[in-house]
Amino acid sequence: MDKTFSQWKKTCLNKLDLSKKGSVDQDIEHVVSLINSCEEYFTTSSCSGRIILIDAATENSDVQKQNCTWLFVSHQKCTLDDLIHGLTKSIGDAVLKFEPFVLHVQCRKLEDAQLMHSVAINSGFRNSGLTVGKTEKIMMAVRSTHGLEVPLSHEGRLLVGHEYIHFLTQIANQKMEENLRRIHRFYHNLQSALTKETLQIHDPPGSQDIQHPLKSLETEKEKKTSVYKRRRKREKHRTTSECCHVDGSSSVQEQDDYLHLFT
Amino acid sequence: MDKTFSQWKKTCLNKLDLSKKGSVDQDIEHVVSLINSCEEYFTTSSCSGRIILIDAATENSDVQKQNCTWLFVSHQKCTLDDLIHGLTKSIGDAVLKFEPFVLHVQCRKLEDAQLMHSVAINSGFRNSGLTVGKTEKIMMAVRSTHGLEVPLSHEGRLLVGHEYIHFLTQIANQKMEENLRRIHRFYHNLQSALTKETLQIHDPPGSQDIQHPLKSLETEKEKKTSVYKRRRKREKHRTTSECCHVDGSSSVQEQDDYLHLFT
Repeated sequence: MDKTFSQWKKTCLNKLDLSKKGSVDQDIEHVVSLINSCEEYFTTSSCSGRIILIDAATENSDVQKQNCTWLFVSHQKCTLDDLIHGLTKSIGDAVLKFEPFVLHVQCRKLEDAQLMHSVAINSGFRNSGLTVGKTEKIMMAVRSTHGLEVPLSHEGRLLVGHEYIHFLTQIANQKMEENLRRIHRFYHNLQSALTKETLQIHDPPGSQDIQHPLKSLETEKEKKTSVYKRRRKREKHRTTSECCHVDGSSSVQEQDDYLHLFT
Repeated sequence: MDKTFSQWKKTCLNKLDLSKKGSVDQDIEHVVSLINSCEEYFTTSSCSGRIILIDAATENSDVQKQNCTWLFVSHQKCTLDDLIHGLTKSIGDAVLKFEPFVLHVQCRKLEDAQLMHSVAINSGFRNSGLTVGKTEKIMMAVRSTHGLEVPLSHEGRLLVGHEYIHFLTQIANQKMEENLRRIHRFYHNLQSALTKETLQIHDPPGSQDIQHPLKSLETEKEKKTSVYKRRRKREKHRTTSECCHVDGSSSVQEQDDYLHLFT
């Protein structure tokens, strides 16, 4: 264990939570705990996903979140009344957003970050990626492509009817449900990956045939393989239709590379 | 120069463009050319940014893009008529999206990817990140947080009025303008970074004082420093307000780390 990393981790986890909310969101407490229980990782920021209604000053509504008022925020599903009530307070340009699960994990080594990245991609968090700092600080950001961003008022005047806002409530709540399913998948894939890693590192030769207390390795392996196959199939479908310039090898190959990191 | 990487690059650039469009988007041709002119990099896919109207089958509209019909797509600004015309063809759940500039760059070494990442972050592409594959394949994805995703019809029935669609047209076009400004910033920051890198690697000692044919290094350095200061200021503002769990050091420090990569 690298001493600098463990010191970093200790300092970080002992610090005050500086977020507005001041604590980890309930729906991801188990994910954050699992990660922080591993020597190789610690979390630096997170959000389980939220539905927000922000009111931006009209002149810069398209770019920045600064000078914004929060009219409503929820980390759970919302109701039509929540949104209608929030919108009555709008004096600028109100926008409804669904922001999915996001997580920043500092990783001890590049291999540790690769494993975490692989789990994230295979759990549906396609916009995840690494940052390698000048001082060898390695961060992995878990990010989804899953969003919603709907302008609803201009200079305080509502631009749509209540029926439409009701429809949006359903869409936002469906996205929240899908977001929770992905978090669940991420947690279980991470658990499997870490179990396998631990067994490979610490167990004596031959011991991998022994039934693991939680689940058998074979079952885990089968499960993982099927997840990757599904993922690759989806990627292949996507590649030629969604980008404007794609080279022959492109993202399919790119995905394949890290999909096999721990298979 | 690593032979494997240069072979990879040659093979990739000689391949057919497999995208739907079959070519690099006009607004980023210069960016793609600049990157591909460097030994350390080549692009594998790109999109300059686009306004799209997709029609999804009702049952899976919230999750997948599969089984979607494209009602309208433009890499330039759009008009109200474009969207209205597209919407008349909707039989499922139509959604208007603005998808910003995205670029995948394969990088020779980790340091090369770090430089490219640093340029992307400092040009406003906050969701950019690296992927390091099992076979040491290093990809850098340039991604923005800048989006728009507005459901407009359900089972072919329009849910909003034409006045609202007119407003959306303006918002989407403003986002397209901001997107082009960021591409411009990315191109110029990249040009400066690569110029500095080349000078540092190839020029004899002392030659850095000589006026560079394009611009003086001092001017470049000043410009870069100011870009980073601006960026850090913005990051500091953001950190405590947007996340649900943030440790004391968190993203400010994280940003600082790679912001200095080539200062």
